[in-house]
Amino acid sequence: MAVIMRNFVVLCAFILGCKAAEVPQQCNPSGPSSPHGNAVNSGRQNVHLGPDGYVSGSIWPKPQQHTVGEETFSLSPDTFKFTSTGEASDVLTAAMARYRGLTFPDMIHSNVLRFRRDLSALTSLEITVKEKYAPMTFESDESYALAVSAPASSLTANTVWGALRGLETFSQLVYQDEHDNYLAREGKITDFPRFHYRGFLIDTSRHFIDVSVILRHIDALAYAKYNILHWHIVDDQSFPFVSKTFPSLSNVGAYNNVTHIYDIDDVATVIEYGRMRGIRVVPEFDTPGHTQSWVSIKDLLTPCYSGGKPTGTYGPINPTLNSTYTFLKSFFGEIGTRFLDDYIHLGGDEVSFSCWESNPNVLAWMDKMGFGKNFSLLEQYYEQKLIDIVGGLKKKYIIWQEVIDNQVTVNPDTVVNVWKGGWQNEMAKVTAKNLNVVLSSPWYLNYISYGNDWPKYYSVEPTAFNGTSAQKKLVLGGTTCMWGEWVDGTNLLPRSWPRSLAISERLWSSINTTDVADAQGRLREHRCRYLMRGIPAQNGVQSKYCRYEWTL
Amino acid sequence: MAVIMRNFVVLCAFILGCKAAEVPQQCNPSGPSSPHGNAVNSGRQNVHLGPDGYVSGSIWPKPQQHTVGEETFSLSPDTFKFTSTGEASDVLTAAMARYRGLTFPDMIHSNVLRFRRDLSALTSLEITVKEKYAPMTFESDESYALAVSAPASSLTANTVWGALRGLETFSQLVYQDEHDNYLAREGKITDFPRFHYRGFLIDTSRHFIDVSVILRHIDALAYAKYNILHWHIVDDQSFPFVSKTFPSLSNVGAYNNVTHIYDIDDVATVIEYGRMRGIRVVPEFDTPGHTQSWVSIKDLLTPCYSGGKPTGTYGPINPTLNSTYTFLKSFFGEIGTRFLDDYIHLGGDEVSFSCWESNPNVLAWMDKMGFGKNFSLLEQYYEQKLIDIVGGLKKKYIIWQEVIDNQVTVNPDTVVNVWKGGWQNEMAKVTAKNLNVVLSSPWYLNYISYGNDWPKYYSVEPTAFNGTSAQKKLVLGGTTCMWGEWVDGTNLLPRSWPRSLAISERLWSSINTTDVADAQGRLREHRCRYLMRGIPAQNGVQSKYCRYEWTL
Repeated sequence: MAVIMRNFVVLCAFILGCKAAEVPQQCNPSGPSSPHGNAVNSGRQNVHLGPDGYVSGSIWPKPQQHTVGEETFSLSPDTFKFTSTGEASDVLTAAMARYRGLTFPDMIHSNVLRFRRDLSALTSLEITVKEKYAPMTFESDESYALAVSAPASSLTANTVWGALRGLETFSQLVYQDEHDNYLAREGKITDFPRFHYRGFLIDTSRHFIDVSVILRHIDALAYAKYNILHWHIVDDQSFPFVSKTFPSLSNVGAYNNVTHIYDIDDVATVIEYGRMRGIRVVPEFDTPGHTQSWVSIKDLLTPCYSGGKPTGTYGPINPTLNSTYTFLKSFFGEIGTRFLDDYIHLGGDEVSFSCWESNPNVLAWMDKMGFGKNFSLLEQYYEQKLIDIVGGLKKKYIIWQEVIDNQVTVNPDTVVNVWKGGWQNEMAKVTAKNLNVVLSSPWYLNYISYGNDWPKYYSVEPTAFNGTSAQKKLVLGGTTCMWGEWVDGTNLLPRSWPRSLAISERLWSSINTTDVADAQGRLREHRCRYLMRGIPAQNGVQSKYCRYEWTL
Repeated sequence: MAVIMRNFVVLCAFILGCKAAEVPQQCNPSGPSSPHGNAVNSGRQNVHLGPDGYVSGSIWPKPQQHTVGEETFSLSPDTFKFTSTGEASDVLTAAMARYRGLTFPDMIHSNVLRFRRDLSALTSLEITVKEKYAPMTFESDESYALAVSAPASSLTANTVWGALRGLETFSQLVYQDEHDNYLAREGKITDFPRFHYRGFLIDTSRHFIDVSVILRHIDALAYAKYNILHWHIVDDQSFPFVSKTFPSLSNVGAYNNVTHIYDIDDVATVIEYGRMRGIRVVPEFDTPGHTQSWVSIKDLLTPCYSGGKPTGTYGPINPTLNSTYTFLKSFFGEIGTRFLDDYIHLGGDEVSFSCWESNPNVLAWMDKMGFGKNFSLLEQYYEQKLIDIVGGLKKKYIIWQEVIDNQVTVNPDTVVNVWKGGWQNEMAKVTAKNLNVVLSSPWYLNYISYGNDWPKYYSVEPTAFNGTSAQKKLVLGGTTCMWGEWVDGTNLLPRSWPRSLAISERLWSSINTTDVADAQGRLREHRCRYLMRGIPAQNGVQSKYCRYEWTL
């Protein structure tokens, strides 16, 4: 009865043509007096306007090609089938089960209200994966083709990773009308990511983040078609990572070495959870700076001096001792086996030279090496040895831009992560050296401000710098950064979502996908999906309301 | 074994005097390499430093008087008794049960580790309430006296509301040491609020907030010794309040009149939940502006004109029609019975005159009344009639400052809520008219910025304006505002807490409680308590970590 009344009010407003006192001023599809689900009957298409007047079933990030057909099909959650032919894998099997819930979020309502049986029913999604399962890498093909037709729709992908992206798209295409019917528009989608590197940095050193929150965040990344969790796992502030080889690192370096740690199982859990969702976990072990919490390793950090005496404080890792490299070889050897991804982020940012400069032993060693007082040479020496060690593990590596800025010679396959201001010049400089780049500078979401900030992130074009087309091709993608100075498990999710969706579309969709008004409508709908899916995505998109609001 | 090892590391650091490579640079009680619970053995006091080096068992907001004794007592959660003599009430009975859990948050650990049986045990808190139960009002006495001694501690209060505040203090005094023992320092506390009006505004019109979130927020208010939930329940954007008398208000005005509403039970639930915790619920029904969502009431809003014709848009409530006052009398009659508190907030802010000015019928009426084109007189006419109506309900009222700014003559017992910039001048002006004031201007927490913003709110002194001591006495307190343009159930809690704790101490504690460093230590501990108590208070206090971090 209540539902009938609601619809009566809505229809009234539209039948009356928004005259009189019924729905004045706000009389538009997004007006505050309109209950959700404004049904606009425009012929057989049954176009359905969502909470903020956008056609529901919109897709985020926007596919490369999407042809929308004339028909609208009904779907029944009770009988709908996800089937698969071609190469099977544990990833696909789990994803098919997961996406049943994500495609049909409120099973409760589905049996109660059903008014549109006349629409030809869409009864199955047939998934075909062409290639055998292989772990996701930077080179993985994430493309897919989706044909929404009745009675059977089809999803075709070369890899299971493309199938995951297509399942996400399909789950977004299906929407509910004002009677809670499930519907999908006829259409054909051909889709692939513009950039292969679509990362999101979390920082678990400034503040510890419980694994339960990290897993929820990985879900959120998958819903946005991100594909990398850049796990800035340790830093000066704390060392929560439990090393098998060097347990003292977390025993001394963690905020609490019983509760505030990621033990072997925790790390494996995060990696496996990511794998199942097409999210590569790329760890960052930042050296030689940002290593105060590594202090338990004897002689690793440089003792700082003042007036000819050690001050009792320590600087960056000491590059002058052989013991340093013995340790690094052993430590990164463990990292290489614990983290399955091809890539390791080696940091290299913000190395202060003052402590090295204060230390007479370092100076004497540099003199012997003929470095004089050129500390960039010392840093270069360190980085070169580190890169050789990690290269020997058959891992590729990513570094922060300073390694290049400080004239360190790096291997040609190095990926440079640009994070400082003036990024356009830096991108030009780095790509001129024929090095790959990943952009982060304009995407520091830890910086917050009042109001609607997503268009600022959305408007960034990572290839908008002076350079040849060959240089532009060296832009692998970008990494959204949520540094942890003011972020922990209490606010990671609402602060990251939906703001970081802006960047996920920039990194996935065509270079021409720049229409903020179009994006806003789709963002609102997708943000509401996040709430339904258990992610407390805050209202950063001027959305009035969602079908389901956040509850505790 | 793990626990032993952890303590071993901590004690090592202190025994070694922080020398050598064990704990360099960060070697201070708040250093990142120190596991939590640094035990400093300074004689028999067993002073316990919390996560950030602060003595645990600190109290927020700071009591008016607190004498700390020499002894530290152990408490056993299994056998500890909360007893009451004197006047009983449902409020006290429920609070005693609630505060058992809040005082002893991790019962699991309590039976496992117990190393300090030698400390004389504190076995009970005896609560005495002198006066018979009476509903909480602005005049209620919230003072209490707490003597922490062994074996029995005592809490004495004139009213149950004072007892609630004392229970909150007692629950904070009890802390856990590094072995998870419960301890409390001997001491005597005499406490009372500096200001009786300590409000927190939530806005459920810009965005709907589910009742479950509001209830959790009320818990959070009680933990901070706030005493008023200012419920800005409706506004232009939506009308979620379900009126028995005028159901069309929410039927037309709610975002969704089935799901995005506060029905009769919801409102009663919020009020009762607040009552049990000493939180008065003061609703705001803002008129004559901010009423676009009231549109379903025939002829209530003023039709705007352009070029001699109605534009189809509407302005503020139409003060010129008798039907307006008939409606208001009936509507506020219902509000007066639905909300139990003595006070109603009547709004009155941001009344635009342009629509009134455009309407020929309004102009003709004003002419007849001799108002000419003085729209302040029209507003005054409206406010006077509204105030008379609400006064007839035996309710007191609060209004936003514009009602005074626009020269409306108000009754002497009016409370003026100052919210605009230049608040010092406004406070001087309003109190010069011998009117009571409540301050909000510097406490708009919906405005966010990067970093540590609580000291800004903490540094505000509400009586720091030019005026006599009689004028200063008219400052009843303040209201923290969390307007809802960018806030809903996803972020209300982390955005409000711990930032608004700064204001709760300003409003409760002595005028001399201004030491930011002292406050920071206590804030950190209290913020960690919020996490334990299920409130996702974000890390806005530069706290490194908490005993328990947020999990999902």
